[in-house]
Amino acid sequence: MGGGRRTVTDPQTVTIVAHATPAGRAALALVRLSGPDSAAIAARIFARARGAPLVDGRPMLGTLLDRGGAPIDQAVLTLHRAPHTVTGEDVAEITLHGSPVIVRETLAACVLAGARPAAPGEFTLRALRAGKIDLAQAEAVRDLVEAATVEQARIAARQLGGEVSAAIAPLAEGIFELLADVEAGLDFSDGEEALALAGAEVAGRAERLAAQIDALAGASEPARRVREGARVVLLGPTNSGKSSIFNKLIGYGRVIVTPEPGTTRDLIEEQLVLEGLPIVLVDAAGVGEPGGQAEAEGMRRALAAAESAHLVLEVYDLSRPERPVGPPGAHRLRVGTHADLPPAGPPAQGTVAVSPLTGEGMTALRAVIAEQLHAPGARPLESVALATERHLAAALEARDALVAAAGQARAGEGAELLAIDLRRAVHALREILGEVGPEALLERIFARFCIGK
Amino acid sequence: MGGGRRTVTDPQTVTIVAHATPAGRAALALVRLSGPDSAAIAARIFARARGAPLVDGRPMLGTLLDRGGAPIDQAVLTLHRAPHTVTGEDVAEITLHGSPVIVRETLAACVLAGARPAAPGEFTLRALRAGKIDLAQAEAVRDLVEAATVEQARIAARQLGGEVSAAIAPLAEGIFELLADVEAGLDFSDGEEALALAGAEVAGRAERLAAQIDALAGASEPARRVREGARVVLLGPTNSGKSSIFNKLIGYGRVIVTPEPGTTRDLIEEQLVLEGLPIVLVDAAGVGEPGGQAEAEGMRRALAAAESAHLVLEVYDLSRPERPVGPPGAHRLRVGTHADLPPAGPPAQGTVAVSPLTGEGMTALRAVIAEQLHAPGARPLESVALATERHLAAALEARDALVAAAGQARAGEGAELLAIDLRRAVHALREILGEVGPEALLERIFARFCIGK
Repeated sequence: MGGGRRTVTDPQTVTIVAHATPAGRAALALVRLSGPDSAAIAARIFARARGAPLVDGRPMLGTLLDRGGAPIDQAVLTLHRAPHTVTGEDVAEITLHGSPVIVRETLAACVLAGARPAAPGEFTLRALRAGKIDLAQAEAVRDLVEAATVEQARIAARQLGGEVSAAIAPLAEGIFELLADVEAGLDFSDGEEALALAGAEVAGRAERLAAQIDALAGASEPARRVREGARVVLLGPTNSGKSSIFNKLIGYGRVIVTPEPGTTRDLIEEQLVLEGLPIVLVDAAGVGEPGGQAEAEGMRRALAAAESAHLVLEVYDLSRPERPVGPPGAHRLRVGTHADLPPAGPPAQGTVAVSPLTGEGMTALRAVIAEQLHAPGARPLESVALATERHLAAALEARDALVAAAGQARAGEGAELLAIDLRRAVHALREILGEVGPEALLERIFARFCIGK
Repeated sequence: MGGGRRTVTDPQTVTIVAHATPAGRAALALVRLSGPDSAAIAARIFARARGAPLVDGRPMLGTLLDRGGAPIDQAVLTLHRAPHTVTGEDVAEITLHGSPVIVRETLAACVLAGARPAAPGEFTLRALRAGKIDLAQAEAVRDLVEAATVEQARIAARQLGGEVSAAIAPLAEGIFELLADVEAGLDFSDGEEALALAGAEVAGRAERLAAQIDALAGASEPARRVREGARVVLLGPTNSGKSSIFNKLIGYGRVIVTPEPGTTRDLIEEQLVLEGLPIVLVDAAGVGEPGGQAEAEGMRRALAAAESAHLVLEVYDLSRPERPVGPPGAHRLRVGTHADLPPAGPPAQGTVAVSPLTGEGMTALRAVIAEQLHAPGARPLESVALATERHLAAALEARDALVAAAGQARAGEGAELLAIDLRRAVHALREILGEVGPEALLERIFARFCIGK
């Protein structure tokens, strides 16, 4: 801490400026200032029409001045006074014409008048530090902007609306109350490690809280999948036609397809969206008798990828006698290729028959994949509280700590040990909202923001 | 007219919507509505925080709703009521997070709620029709956004500030008064074509007005050059090194340079900026004995390009005995190449000696070019009233009409004929401000706007 990141040490004293809208030519652009000198800097670069004074909270028409004081645009300035602003600081918003040269000149004029160019995410970081939003909401701002699908944007919008805090804060409070009760035992036994509550009661409360976290994680699973995407792996014998299905699914020829077996050795990944669900489609090496060390490594990777996939497409050739082994499972889907050729026998149970060559069955395959992955379609998502990997990991750490505390309570351990686990659980949940946590966490999160946010 | 362009027939009844900021990801984006239903449409897609009612003129925080009514972003809405708005109509401005999917969804929601996607330049056209700006200001909006240099932006900002109207309106008024006086003669002589004023007085007044237009055109020449750019043509014998100078000036290898003579046959154009002045640099075929029909055509084009250039660089090879013919002129600059080789003799008078190979003399050449072209540097521009070709052409038409009127007055022609020329002069000046003129003119001008303006 301390000095490594300027934004951490000077939020209240330095005024920052940034272009808030994308680079390029358009009707309008937005430049924002935040900090104590926002109004003074704005007054230096903006002359109100007919010399009227600047007033707060209302858009004002006027002339934007360049570094030399010459008019460079007609613009609208809106001043917002602390503390009821997006950053909690004085904020000036300038709406100007969407010209790259005018934006550049305006930023330069602001810097000459005393502003500092904002670091990535610095506006949002200031909002966080001012208590305007919590960390989950700050992350939602980033997710909103980066959303690739409208479903992802909807999840981020709900997180920005405070749903994460609404779900997490009561859980943290519940654990904190249990911790207080346990520590009360500590207090009045004066370090003697006697429990004020019966061990079974502590264990029961901790287990109920752990179960609530599990339930929340489960309710957030569809949203998490929409946000993080699902991994779908194509698995099958060499030359069964996996790459052709892959290409047909992604809609263009990303992978080299040849009639020679063993062409695909590395994992090839492409992204696509099926009914609102982003999918990472993985084409892996064929599985069978390896022709050499490289092929053996390819097969090892293919099997490992299938192991961690949300869905495995077990591809086999309908025109050849081999059939997939093992029963169809919840995360397995049998796909028979070469449906345009004479079949070598009846298809295996539950097979989706396709021909990438003629297109036969491909629409059905997309639909079955979407169904198997619970693509959101129009269904509302139950919870978005643990939709991000960071939130889920923190919640599961809290859950594990609660389970550990329950185990210790049932084993008759004293308050001291229980309190350590319960504190760990509270801490983990509060990290989600950014109430605790090292600067390093913030730095890691805000480094992914773009300038102007 | 009439129906060919929807914007012409429905400005007061249809509400339009457009994304006003550039496409792309950033902190923020702006979507604008204009028209009678702006507030109603905004109310359909925007839920104010804590259900508070929408109020005018103040930015309001709330939730943006998608087509299904689900929250998709937290946004700021500002309603502006007619007539004191940018278009003269009700306007709603929505500042949302800069996410392409959210912008797209918001536009779709607005259209579903009754808005029509705006045509290019339609916001500005509505401002023009409402009398909020004149045509020269509307053009300045376009020029501001398209400005390639800060100097061009400054000119557009001055035009947007009303300088064109301030210069043109009094001239139009002066001509109109003269016309009224001339027509008074028509009135009271009851068609007898007698002049109420002496012919010499009419001629004198018309000539003074014509001189004022000429003076304005001259005062606008530097601004016009900054706006339109200057054409600089490289002219010289084949293989004198023109293309090497061209490449060095533009700073990268745009043109194929070979030691064989006659490589450059077509005109090659590139843009560069010297001290704030945009320049179109033209590399032309070598002039000399043509080797064939194609080369002869190339030379013809080279000479024609030199004829219309603002500056001709007469390139010759210092290491060979040829020297440029003719005296150096105001629009001619002698450039001697191969300054790194032993000279064949003393350079011609006024030669700038350069070697594109070693870079010798290139900085001096740039400075001399800028000086010859009166690059603006830090000097203020006297007038921007006739900085565009359209404005200049209209003004010169008015000037010609005034000169014609003066000639006829001195020749003793009657009021009827004089009035025709004076009306033509008034009309031409009013076209600059868009006070008169066919729809076709507007369509041509606004077709160059981008959506959202």
